[in-house]
Amino acid sequence: MQFEKEILFGAAYYEEYLPYDRLEQDMELMVQAGFNVIRIAESTWSTEEPEPGKYDFSHVDRVIDAAERHGLSVIIGTPTYAVPHWLTELDPDVLAVTKNGKELYGHRQNMDITNPTYRAYAEKIIRALISHTAGRKNVIGFQLDNETKHYDTSGEHAVALFRKWMEKRYASVEELNKRLGLHYWSNAVNSFSDLPDPRGTINGSYAAEFARFQRTCAADFLKWQRAIVEEYCRPDQFITQNFDYEWREFPSGGYSWGVQPGICHYEASDAVTVMGTDIYCFDQDRLTGREIAFGGDLMRPVKKANYLVLESQAQAFKEWLPYPGQLFQMAMSHIASGACSVMYWNWFSIHNAIESYWKGILSHDFEPNPTYEEVAEIGKAFKRLSPELTGLKKKNEAAIVVSTENVDVLKWFPTAPDFTYNDGVHWIYDTLYDMNLECDVIFAKETDWSGYKLLIFPQLYLTEEGLVERIRAFTEAGGTVFATFRSFFTDDRVKIYPDRQPHGLTEVFGMTYNQYTNPDQVTVGGAKARYWMELLKPDTAKAVDSYEHQYWGGYAAVTRNEYGKGHAWYLGTYLPESKLKEYLKQAAADAGISLQAYAFPLILRTCETPDGNCLRFIFNYSRETIRTVLEWNGYDLLSDRDYHAGEQAELKDWGVMILKEH
Amino acid sequence: MQFEKEILFGAAYYEEYLPYDRLEQDMELMVQAGFNVIRIAESTWSTEEPEPGKYDFSHVDRVIDAAERHGLSVIIGTPTYAVPHWLTELDPDVLAVTKNGKELYGHRQNMDITNPTYRAYAEKIIRALISHTAGRKNVIGFQLDNETKHYDTSGEHAVALFRKWMEKRYASVEELNKRLGLHYWSNAVNSFSDLPDPRGTINGSYAAEFARFQRTCAADFLKWQRAIVEEYCRPDQFITQNFDYEWREFPSGGYSWGVQPGICHYEASDAVTVMGTDIYCFDQDRLTGREIAFGGDLMRPVKKANYLVLESQAQAFKEWLPYPGQLFQMAMSHIASGACSVMYWNWFSIHNAIESYWKGILSHDFEPNPTYEEVAEIGKAFKRLSPELTGLKKKNEAAIVVSTENVDVLKWFPTAPDFTYNDGVHWIYDTLYDMNLECDVIFAKETDWSGYKLLIFPQLYLTEEGLVERIRAFTEAGGTVFATFRSFFTDDRVKIYPDRQPHGLTEVFGMTYNQYTNPDQVTVGGAKARYWMELLKPDTAKAVDSYEHQYWGGYAAVTRNEYGKGHAWYLGTYLPESKLKEYLKQAAADAGISLQAYAFPLILRTCETPDGNCLRFIFNYSRETIRTVLEWNGYDLLSDRDYHAGEQAELKDWGVMILKEH
Amino acid sequence: MQFEKEILFGAAYYEEYLPYDRLEQDMELMVQAGFNVIRIAESTWSTEEPEPGKYDFSHVDRVIDAAERHGLSVIIGTPTYAVPHWLTELDPDVLAVTKNGKELYGHRQNMDITNPTYRAYAEKIIRALISHTAGRKNVIGFQLDNETKHYDTSGEHAVALFRKWMEKRYASVEELNKRLGLHYWSNAVNSFSDLPDPRGTINGSYAAEFARFQRTCAADFLKWQRAIVEEYCRPDQFITQNFDYEWREFPSGGYSWGVQPGICHYEASDAVTVMGTDIYCFDQDRLTGREIAFGGDLMRPVKKANYLVLESQAQAFKEWLPYPGQLFQMAMSHIASGACSVMYWNWFSIHNAIESYWKGILSHDFEPNPTYEEVAEIGKAFKRLSPELTGLKKKNEAAIVVSTENVDVLKWFPTAPDFTYNDGVHWIYDTLYDMNLECDVIFAKETDWSGYKLLIFPQLYLTEEGLVERIRAFTEAGGTVFATFRSFFTDDRVKIYPDRQPHGLTEVFGMTYNQYTNPDQVTVGGAKARYWMELLKPDTAKAVDSYEHQYWGGYAAVTRNEYGKGHAWYLGTYLPESKLKEYLKQAAADAGISLQAYAFPLILRTCETPDGNCLRFIFNYSRETIRTVLEWNGYDLLSDRDYHAGEQAELKDWGVMILKEH
Repeated sequence: MQFEKEILFGAAYYEEYLPYDRLEQDMELMVQAGFNVIRIAESTWSTEEPEPGKYDFSHVDRVIDAAERHGLSVIIGTPTYAVPHWLTELDPDVLAVTKNGKELYGHRQNMDITNPTYRAYAEKIIRALISHTAGRKNVIGFQLDNETKHYDTSGEHAVALFRKWMEKRYASVEELNKRLGLHYWSNAVNSFSDLPDPRGTINGSYAAEFARFQRTCAADFLKWQRAIVEEYCRPDQFITQNFDYEWREFPSGGYSWGVQPGICHYEASDAVTVMGTDIYCFDQDRLTGREIAFGGDLMRPVKKANYLVLESQAQAFKEWLPYPGQLFQMAMSHIASGACSVMYWNWFSIHNAIESYWKGILSHDFEPNPTYEEVAEIGKAFKRLSPELTGLKKKNEAAIVVSTENVDVLKWFPTAPDFTYNDGVHWIYDTLYDMNLECDVIFAKETDWSGYKLLIFPQLYLTEEGLVERIRAFTEAGGTVFATFRSFFTDDRVKIYPDRQPHGLTEVFGMTYNQYTNPDQVTVGGAKARYWMELLKPDTAKAVDSYEHQYWGGYAAVTRNEYGKGHAWYLGTYLPESKLKEYLKQAAADAGISLQAYAFPLILRTCETPDGNCLRFIFNYSRETIRTVLEWNGYDLLSDRDYHAGEQAELKDWGVMILKEH
Repeated sequence: MQFEKEILFGAAYYEEYLPYDRLEQDMELMVQAGFNVIRIAESTWSTEEPEPGKYDFSHVDRVIDAAERHGLSVIIGTPTYAVPHWLTELDPDVLAVTKNGKELYGHRQNMDITNPTYRAYAEKIIRALISHTAGRKNVIGFQLDNETKHYDTSGEHAVALFRKWMEKRYASVEELNKRLGLHYWSNAVNSFSDLPDPRGTINGSYAAEFARFQRTCAADFLKWQRAIVEEYCRPDQFITQNFDYEWREFPSGGYSWGVQPGICHYEASDAVTVMGTDIYCFDQDRLTGREIAFGGDLMRPVKKANYLVLESQAQAFKEWLPYPGQLFQMAMSHIASGACSVMYWNWFSIHNAIESYWKGILSHDFEPNPTYEEVAEIGKAFKRLSPELTGLKKKNEAAIVVSTENVDVLKWFPTAPDFTYNDGVHWIYDTLYDMNLECDVIFAKETDWSGYKLLIFPQLYLTEEGLVERIRAFTEAGGTVFATFRSFFTDDRVKIYPDRQPHGLTEVFGMTYNQYTNPDQVTVGGAKARYWMELLKPDTAKAVDSYEHQYWGGYAAVTRNEYGKGHAWYLGTYLPESKLKEYLKQAAADAGISLQAYAFPLILRTCETPDGNCLRFIFNYSRETIRTVLEWNGYDLLSDRDYHAGEQAELKDWGVMILKEH
Repeated sequence: MQFEKEILFGAAYYEEYLPYDRLEQDMELMVQAGFNVIRIAESTWSTEEPEPGKYDFSHVDRVIDAAERHGLSVIIGTPTYAVPHWLTELDPDVLAVTKNGKELYGHRQNMDITNPTYRAYAEKIIRALISHTAGRKNVIGFQLDNETKHYDTSGEHAVALFRKWMEKRYASVEELNKRLGLHYWSNAVNSFSDLPDPRGTINGSYAAEFARFQRTCAADFLKWQRAIVEEYCRPDQFITQNFDYEWREFPSGGYSWGVQPGICHYEASDAVTVMGTDIYCFDQDRLTGREIAFGGDLMRPVKKANYLVLESQAQAFKEWLPYPGQLFQMAMSHIASGACSVMYWNWFSIHNAIESYWKGILSHDFEPNPTYEEVAEIGKAFKRLSPELTGLKKKNEAAIVVSTENVDVLKWFPTAPDFTYNDGVHWIYDTLYDMNLECDVIFAKETDWSGYKLLIFPQLYLTEEGLVERIRAFTEAGGTVFATFRSFFTDDRVKIYPDRQPHGLTEVFGMTYNQYTNPDQVTVGGAKARYWMELLKPDTAKAVDSYEHQYWGGYAAVTRNEYGKGHAWYLGTYLPESKLKEYLKQAAADAGISLQAYAFPLILRTCETPDGNCLRFIFNYSRETIRTVLEWNGYDLLSDRDYHAGEQAELKDWGVMILKEH
């Protein structure tokens, strides 16, 4: 694959949207910027098939031809995530029914991905497009659909499929009623065909089953696309998906960070030959690198391989115009996490419709601007350093164990109105990131824990019995586990375990609890407890810290236990990052993981080159110049100079060093 | 009735929801906790009738049998407030249409209580269940449905019934158009069948008629159930309902307090032989006893008899885990208000679905916990003191006059965005409670005012002519009335009286007004006026206080008038509790009611025992120990010791004394 | 026309809504208050036509008769903006379908104004009513409908008409797809009948076309009514509309101010012989006169003639009870803006339904109150001064150029969540008002710019090519233009111009930009920049001020250029009013406009009497008495005394002087 030989550098390109013909000029500017790849076609179905069965790939051809002339590779996307209006006229059921009712035409991702008409026409356009392009020399890979999720498809057809799916999952109606607790509030059913529309349910177990079914539909949809594409593609062409994350909304805007509930990345990974992703985050004074690191640390372990960054921000939104140096820093941050491509969304700013201000590299006037100029700087660096930056490996000893299911489940049973499942993941991940304790983010379904010394479980509310047993065994064998409140609480049907908490692990953690409350003016070691507090009763565990309160003072807040050859930490409440850091440091020590002296805004990311060298990326995520004493002998690839351990290095605002140790 | 002989103590019990068979263990734990009763069956229709006409009461039988073995009484609830899914498949119109559209299956209380199919199947299951259980010796009573309200049923069938109901209420279409002011904005109709879907109306009078019709449907539904149940039940079995209150939502959670707009408790009281209720409130540092007192003070006067507490909180929600001592205090607070039962919701915490965190006495692990232990303390006290605490009577000289209709009507014509009808009731009730001036809360339709010296009217916006006349007569005969802004303003069709305000009572209050405004930087005696201010012009009345403002300074804010042998107070604006207290003290003096020296957090509730003794409950609603000098000679039933007047008593945090005067 | 001879003074009067017959008393009170006109009938269709085809104008006749007896003129309104319920039963499609779904019956303005059934019955009632009343001597004019807008009519019928309308606007489907950028996200269509339901669109260009179509429907609806009315009316009878403004909601209430997006006033002005409007605003301490001035400054230029104030507030809402003197001040403010009538909404406060608290002159008790007494003072003044206050002319040298389309368009592409198109208009208008720099507010479609020296363009995002050229020519010929950020950005299909910004005007403004961002801790001359900042790069322009920021410091914030004989100012960001005032002062100097020494709360509005005299209205919009030195010799019409230039005059709180210069 090309991405194994050099870093792919480029952007999405929509020649279809150009206000006038400037294909040649664009290509020239791209080449000048050091591009070697573009991504096309993934959202222009109605242009490629203006009427049912009448195909027109002239735009696709024009762009592939021009790219070929300019030495650019092309990734082709299947256009299935935005349907033509004629398809919804042909069969109105193509538009999904969701909790919010029937979708209206206009938006992308508003179709019922289980609808037979949609699938039939999707198959035809995929076959037509892929057979048309797969033979082209500069087509290096395919992207299936885009940011695929289940879109809460809940119409009659989807529910009918769900009933069949359920019938296979349960031996009998009695088992179904029992395992999902349907007797509650008269929800018990008398046959699988009696299963109600899940949109109205008040039963989180039933809702979780439906969400699981919906996610499986999304993963199956991608696997079905892969099978079609594979009929046409060459061995040197890859198949990928542009996976995204939970979108987090704030009054001041939003960004992409968090486990994605609309599809299970782990389950869907079988549909691709290489993981691909898009990463969007705040920049300017809010650029921290956390989102870039998180995306990489989650993508990389899924297939235990590097991944493609298929989209990242250029100057999206007025809030996101990067400060000078930030684009360069972001590009290197992707590489430092194991990315084998840096691609922007998109080349030029679109002149109308909903993404007009999700701006590209070029502004609406198509003239080179400071953003373009910095992109060209990156292109130059990639050209020069590609041999050094390709095929990097990361080996982390710590991992956060996350779960797609729990994102939804903790919306049913929230910790606090302003503390979701992903807030808990964020809290842990960000603290580790700021400490420069690099970690993988692995899914709860992942059973290969070899290489890890420390496993962290933030709010792992739903925990299957098998996982409970694996945690026990991991600890017994010498591993360190670190779990927070609300973990190990329900079975895989979201039924609360009716025995002592934490279920199956009271001996591992050496404590139990059966009452919890809201922390109201409660502190732990002087730090304010928030969101949730479990009243822990240590048995063999030691109370590392206890609650400070007139009535709850008798209970432990944080416990540490020795179990087998290992250690088990449990946090009964939320405490500020500074306090969490203290416990994590001790847990890392228990696990035998050595810590870095650096801390945010100085971020250190370490990789191994194919030839076994150590590459240290050092980032200054701040407005200020930072001077720091280096601990290693090495050669800075960017400034082309040598440093020796103990020497002071200066990182300018938003600066980067790539130290090749020697 | 059993509740006339001893205090009923127990919980709701759902054997149907148990994750494994532990009926015997539960019964044993209940007996150890001093229980004498459980409530079962009220929400498990689909378990009792899994298919149309196929009944299965095995769970009911198992529990009655076991209860009998353990000496526990049983209250049977009709399961009609949560319908099986098959019933909504049989007739989709069973699911109500409301202002929010068609209900989806899943939730309870989502059916159209006027739907004939629903009523037919409800009748069958009621007959089957009651005929099956009424003969059992330990079945002591029946609960009709649960927390019944009209659920805003607004579908075609309900509207058709409404049109017929309206046709009976009005002599002609002309009268209808006139009385409801339908000429406004072209809403006049030309026949009763021309009456539009009330969901879209902009006419608060029309909306109020529909809400009145809906409430009547709810009351009639209960009366219809009573008639069926009475065909089977014994003279020693009671019939009750679990009435609830307006649910108040805050960012930090919600609780139950306020006149209920979904059913008229006064109108529905004919459906029961004894009033029953559930009471839920904040606890921990927000426990004040107000909600418990309010519930009792409202329930008791309806039938001029004591009432059942059918549900109250154990450790519901993490915010509601009680501090040590609070459960005991709450139980005694119910008794001090005239309750003849204390029952919890529920025995064990449910393991899934929407009420998983509305926790029971036992946590999900079923082990005895601090909550269970305190419940057992209460059980022990009840056993010992039942002879003293049963059949208590309360005789209050003051009453707040409230109105179900005005809850809805003041949503149409709000005083302020953050000041509802029930906020006005709250303001008055809480101030009296904090002063330890005990009062009844009586409905505007109640015509028996004997025994009252002081009547308080908070925001009695809609006031029927008859009530106006009764207020006049009451004052003339020597009573004291105390009314707030926005009282006596519209007739019973929510048409504003077109004469001088306060309508029909300008002589009683000795003042009038016809302008009002928003208080913006206005004070009264230095206290900030809020929400609404009427520019009062005293005639015979005295201006007790006037507004302080550059332009409104000439108007009175608070007036006091002597009328006949009585007194009439009027507050033109909202003032803080401290200021309100001053006026209420003077009004109490006018009425000849003596005041207590105690004030919140020391709460005094007084009862009379059947043998005529005075029982004084003294509560410390705070975290601190309080020492106070007692004014009476008496014997504390709880600590088993004598006190003499003038002696200092100590109440621990959240402590209780029950002083039997001698 | 009567309004050319004397100021019309009166109120809306709904005899249909009276709780009892008091027509004579009302008329007497009106005459005592100096009324000479009432407005009737505009919302009582179901009273006038209780059944299809059965007309009853008895209320109309009674009122016209009584008015005649008392010497009052009458304006008749067509009742078409509130439909009878029977009409919606006859054809349910009369109720509009909008973005929020199908309208329910009850509210006014909920019909589909394109519906044929509605139009057929509307035509019949208009013909019946106008033919019945046009011959009456004291009927002086007609109002078509009321506050007409398109009400977002989006049902199938409206969309079908829209498709036809689009077919006429575009030569081909290819042109349509290209001009509206429909290729984006697969939205391209293959025929005009393939155009989707606009409610779901994510394409702001398509949405803008639909909104334009909807506004045209509203204007055409009024023109159609005018044609019908003209068949009956006399030459001395006027035809008007009651135009309103965007309603602005705040937590503390709302008021009417801003360009109206639901109909284009400019386009609809052909439907009337005289412009009419309603003006509602905060009063008490929030009375500033801004809304009154804005309404007049926008209405007057449309037909280059004075306008009718058909509705204004008496004591609407409790928040709006005017302080003593404010009603008088408001009445004179209308006159000072060129109004030839002052009419209140309404005579008496309605006794039920949704406008019960939108109170009239009389309160619900119908007794004279302070509001009535002040109205009578105004009536007396108008009687005495009518010869002086009638036929006034205003000649402003500055104008703000506004655009109906941009109100909607900037909702698609907001500057900031809390900064709309109308916020930008407000910012400019209010600053000019406070400076006493009087201006016209003219529509972008207005091509006659004669008489103006300074044109201001706040956020003129969508700007047609023709307007771009006119701006260039205006500046070249010596005019001064003053534009803010986000102007001249898209063509008339909301496609962003793909060349240098500001489109077509880079030479006029002497600068360009292609990047912009959110101002975060950015200042300009020490003042905080907010909402949006364009990074201006001056060419021939001078940077008047630059951004103060670590990274954006190199860019200009405010530029001034000399072009041809004129001047061009450009503001790249939002700055506080005080800073804006500095720039506007300099721009006024460039334009040769002389400024007043007065500033808010002292407001000066200047008119010319028909005989060429200068009339200066001086208002004190504050609670305090203000003493000021007059600059002119003149005679105060209100106090009947002479002043000479340099003399000190005293304006009481909320006071007015009308100085006739001599």
